[in-house]
Amino acid sequence: MASHWEEFFATHLPPSDFEDNRILLKEFCDRHNKCGQRIVLVTSGGTTVPLEHNTVRFVDNFSYGTRGAASAEYFLEHGYSVVFMHRLNSLEPFTRQFNGQKFMDMLELHDRGPNTTITVKPDSVDVLAPVLASYKAAQDAGKILYVNFTTVSDYFWLLRAACECLAACGPRALLYLAAAVSDFYVPSNQMPTHKIQSGAGAPNIQLQLVPKMLAPLVSLWVPHAYVVSFKLETDESILIRKARDSLNKYKHKLVIGNALQTRRTRVVFVTSDSSYEIVLSREQILNGMEIEDIIVSNIVLNHTEFMKTHKY
Amino acid sequence: MASHWEEFFATHLPPSDFEDNRILLKEFCDRHNKCGQRIVLVTSGGTTVPLEHNTVRFVDNFSYGTRGAASAEYFLEHGYSVVFMHRLNSLEPFTRQFNGQKFMDMLELHDRGPNTTITVKPDSVDVLAPVLASYKAAQDAGKILYVNFTTVSDYFWLLRAACECLAACGPRALLYLAAAVSDFYVPSNQMPTHKIQSGAGAPNIQLQLVPKMLAPLVSLWVPHAYVVSFKLETDESILIRKARDSLNKYKHKLVIGNALQTRRTRVVFVTSDSSYEIVLSREQILNGMEIEDIIVSNIVLNHTEFMKTHKY
Repeated sequence: MASHWEEFFATHLPPSDFEDNRILLKEFCDRHNKCGQRIVLVTSGGTTVPLEHNTVRFVDNFSYGTRGAASAEYFLEHGYSVVFMHRLNSLEPFTRQFNGQKFMDMLELHDRGPNTTITVKPDSVDVLAPVLASYKAAQDAGKILYVNFTTVSDYFWLLRAACECLAACGPRALLYLAAAVSDFYVPSNQMPTHKIQSGAGAPNIQLQLVPKMLAPLVSLWVPHAYVVSFKLETDESILIRKARDSLNKYKHKLVIGNALQTRRTRVVFVTSDSSYEIVLSREQILNGMEIEDIIVSNIVLNHTEFMKTHKY
Repeated sequence: MASHWEEFFATHLPPSDFEDNRILLKEFCDRHNKCGQRIVLVTSGGTTVPLEHNTVRFVDNFSYGTRGAASAEYFLEHGYSVVFMHRLNSLEPFTRQFNGQKFMDMLELHDRGPNTTITVKPDSVDVLAPVLASYKAAQDAGKILYVNFTTVSDYFWLLRAACECLAACGPRALLYLAAAVSDFYVPSNQMPTHKIQSGAGAPNIQLQLVPKMLAPLVSLWVPHAYVVSFKLETDESILIRKARDSLNKYKHKLVIGNALQTRRTRVVFVTSDSSYEIVLSREQILNGMEIEDIIVSNIVLNHTEFMKTHKY
């Protein structure tokens, strides 16, 4: 049995940087709400489930955070303000295309003692300049806020705090819940303090179901917002049924289903009365188009429609 | 009971990029061996234990890879050639100090249409120039080879292949096994194909002990090399005993013990007949000194002594 969401918050402490993040979230949402801005909360990356209090080992969910990081860029292009709530060290908007070595390899050192300069090689400028320009534009306009989490408990605390700040935006708030959140965890009071010792033989890890936070989120925390959740499966045959189950249960607006193997080129939009696929064509793939571009355009249209009918 | 190491290789397939990496390792080791170079294999970062064949969930070991990435830099400074075998997306030498946003924030865009340039801001040049110079020097001289792994099985395959290439270097080979390797795993034949479903209740994960690869590594794969392993505990009181147990069992040269909470400022060197602490002083910490600087200097001295007495 899953524990109740209220019990989860009562028995798990907030992360140590929680108050700082809550202040940042509040300031960001208030500022953009005052201007009548649309705000999207993008969650991204996997969560961990620690197996020990002094954590050496944890269960993790697979996710680089590509979907969330790319989508955040497209939401900015559509004029949204973005709260980018991501797993620490998962991919981030703009920088996602360049790892550390790629950056280093783009740079040229002109060693002239105290007048040393470093420039980006001319052939890398073409690639980097548009990304850098978009990054700086978003930063300078204060249009994006980065907050991060690691454990599933951190994630839940931060999610609720973000919702409390977004609630004031009513139907202008969009929740795009792309993070890969663990279904299971080891409750705090059942966790050993120290690293599990191998001398005692192989351990048996008994996991519990996490509470379904989508329930209070939709009905209590942001009752006027447009909420989109994701469903990832490895078995495509059960995808639409599971997406529809989720919609019926939580009564939110849209579930985007995707299969692990094909998630970069195909997703299915499932609403309460329809389902339709978005598939990248061979030509679009060759042109370097990303499926998040189409996903976000579609959601923005749906959100615009939703705002017309849900005055606040 | 841990399975035998030969059984492990017989029942787990090599990673898909294994042959490519083996060729790179062979070429790198042969080239440096010909010049009588000392070569160090630095392993770094945690390993994962997949819980499903189509992996959505896995058990992970905590490690950013700071120790390995920093140590690789110091080994290069001491003239070693470095095989940097690291967990995909863990920290790497040189770039470890700059994440994506830090890089972006260092850059200045001079938008002049087709003559657009990008430069590093003058106040960031001071920090970046020496790191960039060392990175480029190592790259240009072909002194560092990067290979990466994700699962514990990938790690074992790559470790054995690296050892087979390093064996030819005899006592000039140094193994610096800083990766946080899982003690446990789910054998391939006990893993479900698809994502574990939460509808069926919370799963119970039965882990098995991994074979102790240090045994064949020391006695069979690189019998003439200088082998250093690491021991991480969260409970400091058992650290030296566990390090000594490991030395007695595997007969390698050195175990470096460290506790999770103090690992950045204190380690203990345990050999068959001694143990001594290396502790960063307050002053050293304030001056920005890294403990890996001292660890590596000490090991290089020990390795030099070892080479004198172990002619090959």
